Amino acid sequence: MPGARGRTGVLRTPHGEIRTPAFIPVGTKATVKAVLPETMKEIGGQALLANAYHLYLQPGSDIVDEAGGLSTFMNWPGPTFTDSGGFQVMSLGVGFKKVLSMESVGVRNDDVIAKGKERLAKVDDDGVTFKSHLDGSKHRFTPEISMQIQHRLGADIIFAFDELTTLLNTREYQESSLQRTHEWAVRCVAEHERLTAERTHRPYQALFGVIQGAQYEDLRRQACRGLESIVGPGGSGFDGYGIGGALEKQNLGTIVGWCSDELPDHKPRHLLGISEPDDLFTAVANGADTFDCVNPSRVARNAAIYTPDGRFNINVSRFRRDFTPIDDKCDCYTCAHYTRAYIHHLFKAKEMLASTLCTIHNERFTIRLVDQIRDSIDGGYFDELERETLARFY
Amino acid sequence: MPGARGRTGVLRTPHGEIRTPAFIPVGTKATVKAVLPETMKEIGGQALLANAYHLYLQPGSDIVDEAGGLSTFMNWPGPTFTDSGGFQVMSLGVGFKKVLSMESVGVRNDDVIAKGKERLAKVDDDGVTFKSHLDGSKHRFTPEISMQIQHRLGADIIFAFDELTTLLNTREYQESSLQRTHEWAVRCVAEHERLTAERTHRPYQALFGVIQGAQYEDLRRQACRGLESIVGPGGSGFDGYGIGGALEKQNLGTIVGWCSDELPDHKPRHLLGISEPDDLFTAVANGADTFDCVNPSRVARNAAIYTPDGRFNINVSRFRRDFTPIDDKCDCYTCAHYTRAYIHHLFKAKEMLASTLCTIHNERFTIRLVDQIRDSIDGGYFDELERETLARFY
Repeated sequence: MPGARGRTGVLRTPHGEIRTPAFIPVGTKATVKAVLPETMKEIGGQALLANAYHLYLQPGSDIVDEAGGLSTFMNWPGPTFTDSGGFQVMSLGVGFKKVLSMESVGVRNDDVIAKGKERLAKVDDDGVTFKSHLDGSKHRFTPEISMQIQHRLGADIIFAFDELTTLLNTREYQESSLQRTHEWAVRCVAEHERLTAERTHRPYQALFGVIQGAQYEDLRRQACRGLESIVGPGGSGFDGYGIGGALEKQNLGTIVGWCSDELPDHKPRHLLGISEPDDLFTAVANGADTFDCVNPSRVARNAAIYTPDGRFNINVSRFRRDFTPIDDKCDCYTCAHYTRAYIHHLFKAKEMLASTLCTIHNERFTIRLVDQIRDSIDGGYFDELERETLARFY
Repeated sequence: MPGARGRTGVLRTPHGEIRTPAFIPVGTKATVKAVLPETMKEIGGQALLANAYHLYLQPGSDIVDEAGGLSTFMNWPGPTFTDSGGFQVMSLGVGFKKVLSMESVGVRNDDVIAKGKERLAKVDDDGVTFKSHLDGSKHRFTPEISMQIQHRLGADIIFAFDELTTLLNTREYQESSLQRTHEWAVRCVAEHERLTAERTHRPYQALFGVIQGAQYEDLRRQACRGLESIVGPGGSGFDGYGIGGALEKQNLGTIVGWCSDELPDHKPRHLLGISEPDDLFTAVANGADTFDCVNPSRVARNAAIYTPDGRFNINVSRFRRDFTPIDDKCDCYTCAHYTRAYIHHLFKAKEMLASTLCTIHNERFTIRLVDQIRDSIDGGYFDELERETLARFY
């Protein structure tokens, strides 16, 4: 039965609760681009996810630490996540646009190389050496360094440092990479324990292990069991799990399902990098609790708008004289106060407010959809909601 | 006695009252760049000024009209101003950065040309032919067309179409230009009367005449008396006056004073394009009621910050670890919630929120200063406030 694994719950963090399933908007560099944090709260944002890689390079994790941690630094009093930096150090600068479509990228089996691009990252068993996408300067991340950075950033939920693979890697490479990610996870738990004991002036940070294994059922299941078995020198293990890495859209539900089979029911499962309506239903139906994605805000800045009747681009000329809201049923600030004609004008005039208004709308659309999914699980009508929503959207 | 002409009052418009003296922030293209209209209200903005030239080109004044007028179009329920477009058609694209510093620009006496730039505007007795700075397309403004555009835009306070001169024009050219501006003013009043009678579905728009005359006392005084004498076919005249055109900072007070001598006391006087603290005091002391300027928001987007202790640039490295607000005495949203270190980070990371936060602060700084000046007139301590404020700022 579809939706059988869909579940609701509450994640408790030192900065507040997250009712799950929940969509977690992304504020890459400690700001959701073009939107004030109070506005993210008003549109129902429960938590934000920032990127350790970006904040490590700029302003530096020591500065965020001195500021009192990510939440204080960015004026977001609610819960925060940071990712480990693994995805960015291995993907930025080598031409990967997104994990779901790497088909056009040429990849060798021993490391990650994009066609015609200088290799910016080199993986070895101890960690990753990479060049900054900002200035080409050389840096190195290891599991220990990622933990140290994420402890300085101070998010409530942090992720273990993992190796990114792609669907084009050989089975053999996926196996050895998974072994490496497992060994890194062991080191992350140990370093996390050490830092938690050392930094008692800071609130507790929950550590999530990251499950790789690409499209292979046995590898994904093995990864789950492996991470679950890890116990640090102080007796702790992972507080939750992130499902990451290379997966094709059509396999999303199956892969999340394998992981949910294996993972303990009482720990949260975060799916990295999804926000499309069909993916959200599929992920929840197969047991995922939280998801993050830059997409709703990124496409908003390019004038792409989500509505229950599908996506459209507000930059095209037929909206010049359209004095209706983006979506007259939408409860967001943008739809309450502005017309398509005005927003169209702002894009044509290259005004920053265009990004602000469309980001507010798209983030609200995504947050509300996941809120509705949550209600539908409690109300026992998940399947109907999925059928009606997707029939209308696509 | 300095400040002798300083006065307080109330401008009543169909969209609300403006307590004067008042600083009017600029929303060139029907948005104060990077800031929501509600935020402008929160920081004490009483009215906004948009540019007829920009809105005529994009989205088109007909579209703003169909939207219900500027206020509705941009979700700003308060009073609005539009300028006539005269300044922009004659200055944009010909290299004038601002009226106050045209010394480096080569100008012929018969029309306006910048060194090494194609001439984009050609003035004749009937109007101005110009090329769009957006796409080079050819357009023509006459006094009648400017009135028609401004009626479609629907601001509460609109300005007569005038010719822009510079300090480098000869005395002879200033005289003939002033005569032309006077004749255009006569045509503006007549066209404004016609449109007001025709467009009874719209709220009344007040028309301000614009005083030119550069640095010449006799021309400025003559311009004032000339505009004051204009009576349209229907019996109406100007509702107020704008003081515009070429003037040097050191002559600002003197020129505003000449105008205040000549203009009737019961009509408002708007000074176009000032916002520096010393200029605000000088303008008020000599009888100006309202002022607009893009400067507080424009410099904010380049990281220049106003404080009672002067201006500084927050983009420099000494602010990397400065965890204090921009100004710990400031009552703005930015100073209540963010540190210099965070704002510095946002500029380095090229995040839009940097512009938002600094614009909020600079606009609040300027609005509050003019509010304090207003209170000081009522309280009888204008001179003390001026002395203390300027001693600290400069």
